[in-house]
Amino acid sequence: MRPSGRAPDEMRAITIETGFTKHAEGSCLISFGDTRVLCTASVEERIPPWLRGKGQGWVTGEYSMLPRATHTRGSREAAKGKQSGRTQEIQRLIGRSLRAVCDMEKLGERQITLDCDVIQADGGTRTASISGAWVALRLAVNKLMAEGAIKNDPLTAKIAAISCGIHQGTPVLDLDYIEDSNADADANFVLIEGGQIAEVQATAEGATYDEEGLLRLLRLAQMGCAEIFKAQDEAVK
Amino acid sequence: MRPSGRAPDEMRAITIETGFTKHAEGSCLISFGDTRVLCTASVEERIPPWLRGKGQGWVTGEYSMLPRATHTRGSREAAKGKQSGRTQEIQRLIGRSLRAVCDMEKLGERQITLDCDVIQADGGTRTASISGAWVALRLAVNKLMAEGAIKNDPLTAKIAAISCGIHQGTPVLDLDYIEDSNADADANFVLIEGGQIAEVQATAEGATYDEEGLLRLLRLAQMGCAEIFKAQDEAVK
Amino acid sequence: MRPSGRAPDEMRAITIETGFTKHAEGSCLISFGDTRVLCTASVEERIPPWLRGKGQGWVTGEYSMLPRATHTRGSREAAKGKQSGRTQEIQRLIGRSLRAVCDMEKLGERQITLDCDVIQADGGTRTASISGAWVALRLAVNKLMAEGAIKNDPLTAKIAAISCGIHQGTPVLDLDYIEDSNADADANFVLIEGGQIAEVQATAEGATYDEEGLLRLLRLAQMGCAEIFKAQDEAVK
Amino acid sequence: MRPSGRAPDEMRAITIETGFTKHAEGSCLISFGDTRVLCTASVEERIPPWLRGKGQGWVTGEYSMLPRATHTRGSREAAKGKQSGRTQEIQRLIGRSLRAVCDMEKLGERQITLDCDVIQADGGTRTASISGAWVALRLAVNKLMAEGAIKNDPLTAKIAAISCGIHQGTPVLDLDYIEDSNADADANFVLIEGGQIAEVQATAEGATYDEEGLLRLLRLAQMGCAEIFKAQDEAVK
Amino acid sequence: MRPSGRAPDEMRAITIETGFTKHAEGSCLISFGDTRVLCTASVEERIPPWLRGKGQGWVTGEYSMLPRATHTRGSREAAKGKQSGRTQEIQRLIGRSLRAVCDMEKLGERQITLDCDVIQADGGTRTASISGAWVALRLAVNKLMAEGAIKNDPLTAKIAAISCGIHQGTPVLDLDYIEDSNADADANFVLIEGGQIAEVQATAEGATYDEEGLLRLLRLAQMGCAEIFKAQDEAVK
Amino acid sequence: MRPSGRAPDEMRAITIETGFTKHAEGSCLISFGDTRVLCTASVEERIPPWLRGKGQGWVTGEYSMLPRATHTRGSREAAKGKQSGRTQEIQRLIGRSLRAVCDMEKLGERQITLDCDVIQADGGTRTASISGAWVALRLAVNKLMAEGAIKNDPLTAKIAAISCGIHQGTPVLDLDYIEDSNADADANFVLIEGGQIAEVQATAEGATYDEEGLLRLLRLAQMGCAEIFKAQDEAVK
Repeated sequence: MRPSGRAPDEMRAITIETGFTKHAEGSCLISFGDTRVLCTASVEERIPPWLRGKGQGWVTGEYSMLPRATHTRGSREAAKGKQSGRTQEIQRLIGRSLRAVCDMEKLGERQITLDCDVIQADGGTRTASISGAWVALRLAVNKLMAEGAIKNDPLTAKIAAISCGIHQGTPVLDLDYIEDSNADADANFVLIEGGQIAEVQATAEGATYDEEGLLRLLRLAQMGCAEIFKAQDEAVK
Repeated sequence: MRPSGRAPDEMRAITIETGFTKHAEGSCLISFGDTRVLCTASVEERIPPWLRGKGQGWVTGEYSMLPRATHTRGSREAAKGKQSGRTQEIQRLIGRSLRAVCDMEKLGERQITLDCDVIQADGGTRTASISGAWVALRLAVNKLMAEGAIKNDPLTAKIAAISCGIHQGTPVLDLDYIEDSNADADANFVLIEGGQIAEVQATAEGATYDEEGLLRLLRLAQMGCAEIFKAQDEAVK
Repeated sequence: MRPSGRAPDEMRAITIETGFTKHAEGSCLISFGDTRVLCTASVEERIPPWLRGKGQGWVTGEYSMLPRATHTRGSREAAKGKQSGRTQEIQRLIGRSLRAVCDMEKLGERQITLDCDVIQADGGTRTASISGAWVALRLAVNKLMAEGAIKNDPLTAKIAAISCGIHQGTPVLDLDYIEDSNADADANFVLIEGGQIAEVQATAEGATYDEEGLLRLLRLAQMGCAEIFKAQDEAVK
Repeated sequence: MRPSGRAPDEMRAITIETGFTKHAEGSCLISFGDTRVLCTASVEERIPPWLRGKGQGWVTGEYSMLPRATHTRGSREAAKGKQSGRTQEIQRLIGRSLRAVCDMEKLGERQITLDCDVIQADGGTRTASISGAWVALRLAVNKLMAEGAIKNDPLTAKIAAISCGIHQGTPVLDLDYIEDSNADADANFVLIEGGQIAEVQATAEGATYDEEGLLRLLRLAQMGCAEIFKAQDEAVK
Repeated sequence: MRPSGRAPDEMRAITIETGFTKHAEGSCLISFGDTRVLCTASVEERIPPWLRGKGQGWVTGEYSMLPRATHTRGSREAAKGKQSGRTQEIQRLIGRSLRAVCDMEKLGERQITLDCDVIQADGGTRTASISGAWVALRLAVNKLMAEGAIKNDPLTAKIAAISCGIHQGTPVLDLDYIEDSNADADANFVLIEGGQIAEVQATAEGATYDEEGLLRLLRLAQMGCAEIFKAQDEAVK
Repeated sequence: MRPSGRAPDEMRAITIETGFTKHAEGSCLISFGDTRVLCTASVEERIPPWLRGKGQGWVTGEYSMLPRATHTRGSREAAKGKQSGRTQEIQRLIGRSLRAVCDMEKLGERQITLDCDVIQADGGTRTASISGAWVALRLAVNKLMAEGAIKNDPLTAKIAAISCGIHQGTPVLDLDYIEDSNADADANFVLIEGGQIAEVQATAEGATYDEEGLLRLLRLAQMGCAEIFKAQDEAVK
């Protein structure tokens, strides 16, 4: 029995509210249950120095938690003067994931930055971030296409992410904070619509898992991402 | 004529949505028109080292803009590794203002941190922050009192803040971004219910102003704050 | 009765020693009683990136306290690796104030940096800094005009600053350290010769003040600045 | 055909030279072909603050590349004043991996830091680091046991790591730098002797992969780690 | 012929103005010609952590140049967020030199910090700093002895420093900025009254020098320090 | 009697293993007894901004200790976010020393960076670094000459460094860690083949020394460097 009463393969409610902020070229507030992340896509007509003159664009991600997104207040990274390893790891993952579904030549010489700011945290902030960032990116690209700045759609597929884990011996889908804190193993999957895998990060600190366990988690993730793809479709319609 | 069509002494719509996040002891999303700030109050049972053993508490503020709260994306202070002078100036102002209406002995040996994170900016982010922070503080103190942790209410009055400025020769109330960018003078007032002044910051970069001008701005601010006090009352009822 | 025995509207002795250092294009050591600040104006034939090609110049300020300018030694900001919020707030104020009396087009495409380094502190370091910085700026501009680098005088007026406060219920002028530590309210005024106001920063942490109080402080400031304008005139003659 | 001429499931030569430095409680220089990493284990009789009084120890990792470990010189992180996201990600992985095979209560209230410094890089530096860190840890623990500081062996199993990837459509084992630069997918596996998985990190930036692909990479990793376990056994004998 | 017209073994005028600031326990403004350094000694009743419980004190030095102490303005280290290698090298030298003439047990469990802030630079700032720091230290120790906080004088001798160099083939004493910029070799000597050497730092970037050259520079330094010792005696009398 | 049993003028064994890493244009692992430093020379076809267009090159040095090069683990400078004063002092010395024997015009518009990373420390790490850096530089320059990138050899002489000190009253050569910790005086000499001196840094913290002492240390250093020059010759042959 999961603490939340959910079935092992049951997701939390997903909601995606697009256009949450007015300045960004694309934005949404995505919720996986009580986890809420504001995702914005900012288009800039400049590219990183190492890409200049190559006729292609760039997609990158940034991530942060508001200080009181969590149960107890965390100190502000800007005040400490540096980003934690965890933050950097997550924002590298966000950028890498979105780049996996974006054709950089079709994007043209511009950069899109996906800012994922966690308003409220209850487990799964990085997976909600990736799933919401795709929506923000899709909206921003739609805007660029509507304006004629881009001719051919650079987005090759939808991408979504979900966490799974082994909780008291049972593989479960979409861990919330309480489950995450007690999981024997914790895995994040970034999946592409159509069955391809963009990223697997499966970690054991306490108990470990075997090949069979990994596959069961992957199956759950495929179910979860199917739901997210639907919610994304609804959102950008 | 103001760009927004407002009368010189007309505020933008104020809304205050309390309980916007679930972890903070007090929270609200305050809007002054399109400016939206998430204010949370976090209670911690510890005080700064220099206050230890004095039988009193502390109230402090922190402030940040999400990178894409603004028209063009600003870089993340956590990524740059330091907070700008502007950020530090504002968060010092927030803390000072709220301390002006809080009796530190009645608060007891605990610290309340008011985090003001700007979700969307359209002028007046610091004044919305202070006005919303009071609501979050009020809610957090109510909770402490309901739990019996505090006996006597440490909050001595309501406090609110508003910007005024001289726009094309006319004193106007509650500047939005377009007005703020073109104002001859820009003033922020932090006022206490009942007529007292907690802080005046009136600045001229282009044109300057005289004593008469200062007074006219103060009168506008008093009108504006009266409206905010009403909205605060509604919100915490 | 003020701790120093001064009358409520009595300034401390002001002295301005020009040419205190030989390298700077303009320099002075300004004293407000025991507060002593070295102000230098450095002319550089370059401008900030965001001003390039606009045919105008820039004036900016920097501020620092020597570690043992104060009663007890403060740690060196260079050693801590960052400037305090207070330092940044003051140097922003210095730059903004001097820009209020300088025509940037007449200055031409060059930058003048006003460094205000506090040699000894006894209250009022920011107001002495602004008042002395004007002298250093005046001398540097005179030099540029004498050399023919500037045709028309870009300085439109004198500018000076003074602190006032409410001390044991009485509005007083030019607070020293002891008064400043115990003041109910503390206000800094930056005034332009001729009656205009460039900046008001009036703060209450303990007691608050009302409109009447604000006006009485402003009147004191006008008297104080009149004395400073005289001392500036003497200094640059 | 692999650039190196190796068969798809062929590892590079592994060598482990123990006792490479004299001060560390355990140390080795591990080579995976031309990749060479110096791994040292440092025992300190202190633990992180958040573990105090819990009767258990801690194992952590740090990672760095010498500036000219690579084809072109990289700038020194100490000179830049911060560690890259990549460095932090790797050192978090090293610590997590080693903790997966260490019983913290048996270790007792002490910390062992595993420093992995890359002397020469040719692909697979993180996997060589983990594999070598285990050897350094084993030697340090042996020393503590020989001295009587630890009664019961806290190390529960051997742990090793290897990279695999899909190179020109073929799953290959132990990528060197040239293969890594051109791989369609890149996966790092941290495996525990006996078949358990401690960590999977499988990433696609260009092409993506499916479940079948993930399994084939895991199989290769199991073969590779079997070889590393043998080399570790030889080294610590 | 030296640019300044001085004889090879001729010092610039030395002046030492004690009591230059009122808060420091000891202070002076020392000038070697146009080089002017403010030296303050701050006594604190605390010691570095690694000295606790050893019954001894500590003497340390800090050094900084005001931004416009030099011909062209240098950026402020506090603004850059770190101290240059040159600054750190000099402040380490200052501390080491003063410790060479201070008996730490007689000083007792307190720390004296010698702050050397260069008001104006014209070559020899580090040697003026050390020479002036001794005066500030002597005055601070005198004060501690007068107050009865210290029984036995911890200062064992006078210490002074001077630069020498080979300028156009001729060994010269007390280099000013122009000579320093063109010297073939540049040496700083820290000498103790009575003939002992505390520190020699002799550097060649362009031409090099031999044993004979080193000795001739040392002889000049001995002559120079004899003059400084006299000035120190006058100052602290 | 020295702790190591060596005669006062006896060096530790010197070994220089060239080509220790494959990517660097020149590299060696130099040992002075148990002190081992990896020195690499990296050639880059770019120069510092302030040298552009002057037709000359630059040679610079960087220095670091691996965390467990020492008896007890030191924290990583990259993790602390800044380099210590000691590190900066040493890397400035390395660069300055190597520049003393390199003709920058013959080198041409390129930069050679000498990285000295201490693998194991037992006293004398800076002198081993300089001595090894020369070998790495020689090898890199040989490579550039063989490739035809440089016509005329820019290296004008060999350079080497050695530490000497006064240990229990006796001047001794090549201090190891134990001697260094207890030396009354500690001197580092950088000497050029043929008798010229590039740098002397002689320091006393405890006891001091006189002219005679300085000369005796210099004589020892000349003997020591003669041995190092031989080892350098062997290494680059």
